[in-house]
Amino acid sequence: MLDLARYMEEKRLRIDAELDRLIPAATVRPQRLHEAMRYSIFCGGKRIRPILCLAAAEAVGASGEVAMLPAVALECLHTYTLIHDDLPAMDNDDLRRGNPTSHKVFGEANAILAGDALLTLAFELIAQTPEAGRLGYELASASGSRGLAGGQYEDLASEGKTPDEEQLQFIHIHKTAKLIRAACRMGGIAGGGSESMLEALGRYGDRIGIAFQVADDILNATSTPEMLGKAVGSDAARGKMTCVALYGIDRARRKAQELLDEALASLKGFPGPTEPLAALAYFMVDRDV
Amino acid sequence: MLDLARYMEEKRLRIDAELDRLIPAATVRPQRLHEAMRYSIFCGGKRIRPILCLAAAEAVGASGEVAMLPAVALECLHTYTLIHDDLPAMDNDDLRRGNPTSHKVFGEANAILAGDALLTLAFELIAQTPEAGRLGYELASASGSRGLAGGQYEDLASEGKTPDEEQLQFIHIHKTAKLIRAACRMGGIAGGGSESMLEALGRYGDRIGIAFQVADDILNATSTPEMLGKAVGSDAARGKMTCVALYGIDRARRKAQELLDEALASLKGFPGPTEPLAALAYFMVDRDV
Repeated sequence: MLDLARYMEEKRLRIDAELDRLIPAATVRPQRLHEAMRYSIFCGGKRIRPILCLAAAEAVGASGEVAMLPAVALECLHTYTLIHDDLPAMDNDDLRRGNPTSHKVFGEANAILAGDALLTLAFELIAQTPEAGRLGYELASASGSRGLAGGQYEDLASEGKTPDEEQLQFIHIHKTAKLIRAACRMGGIAGGGSESMLEALGRYGDRIGIAFQVADDILNATSTPEMLGKAVGSDAARGKMTCVALYGIDRARRKAQELLDEALASLKGFPGPTEPLAALAYFMVDRDV
Repeated sequence: MLDLARYMEEKRLRIDAELDRLIPAATVRPQRLHEAMRYSIFCGGKRIRPILCLAAAEAVGASGEVAMLPAVALECLHTYTLIHDDLPAMDNDDLRRGNPTSHKVFGEANAILAGDALLTLAFELIAQTPEAGRLGYELASASGSRGLAGGQYEDLASEGKTPDEEQLQFIHIHKTAKLIRAACRMGGIAGGGSESMLEALGRYGDRIGIAFQVADDILNATSTPEMLGKAVGSDAARGKMTCVALYGIDRARRKAQELLDEALASLKGFPGPTEPLAALAYFMVDRDV
């Protein structure tokens, strides 16, 4: 029986050590910019995307270590999206994981630059892998205008509008699921997985990615600020389109369960262990915070 | 004798055709985001970085066409820096090449996202080249916190301070020269150039990159708004550190000439034509606008 908490903690320590090694030190010029990059990276993230990447490499029969550079790149890229999404011109959030957001600490210009630099660093790390082309394509296509950035665009554009199922699905897929899908596929690629394994990992990642976003909407509507480390009910206050606004809490919870079942059904026929991926799928839907 | 204007025009047309083909159409969702990306890309740029990339491929004996994807990626990356640098939190410029800046037309959030998406697209294009690893590393290391983003950070941090030669050099190298150097090296890599050719191309690019920034400072201090397509004397008004503020116009002009001489001296022993690179070096220092 897998001890998921221990598995995640072990991976997190390795990932954090590599993040610390690969992000320029706060003593390297421009010092304050590197400080800003490190502030947001080491701000209490659970490292879910890099852990999924490592677990996917293990599922295709490799050591998680072969996927370490892509894993670290994924966390850099994810952190850039948090910094930019929190900006005053975007979601205008003052708190993230219980701490002041980057622009509150470093100012708006430096927060924009820290995000830009983390995005660029992600691709600098990918460029140093043997599968630079395939991994770079996965990461970039999941993150650009047809991925994360497009999802954030539509998310901002939907504020204050009447919820629409098609648009909500577009936002969830683009803003969240595409990067989680890419994380799983990238681990599979780094581990030397076959095309059919990459497809299964992509399907798994897609489903848990959407489920994760649905769970996030539920959390935002039901948590206390202490549980969440940020303002709650803020989505509703801004008239933001969410699963909860569209379906209500109960139907949103059933939707998350269906997606979880589909994700678990994708984890068949792998040469390596898939217990971590299965446990991570449950974790992402049922997480307390 | 090379007709530089004709050479640049031919290259520009090919580059623009590829930009048009490779950037998602304004009919692709999210439409308005793709419109914003295209607005800044097709806003009258001279395509100097991609032209240098193609000319460098020719200098090492290849067809410029082999360097087309990196060339287009360079223009996407360059355009992202312009969009973000113009933001209210950064240089707060309303005009760029005679047109309203991205945030004036599309709003601040969309300008940030359009920049993010163009940066990401640059690496998506690089990922599709046979030399994805080497090209991606050149581009990313020239653009991140130890490159462009770091230069912009120091540039903003230097506003209102007493000019200091060491800091000014840091800014010029990081904010401008590193990407121009990368453009030349990337063309050489795509064209299959040897290490010694890449070194010479890098030296050439470094020198014309700094000369270009020096020329830019001179232009900002001496042009009319009609010539420049944007507000003039704005550097001085903001107390920005520039070559002109530090050296005065005459010494700044001599500095540009020295750099030009060093760049031209690097163009020896190439198997392909280097006339375009030589003419481009003159163009970058003597350009009217």
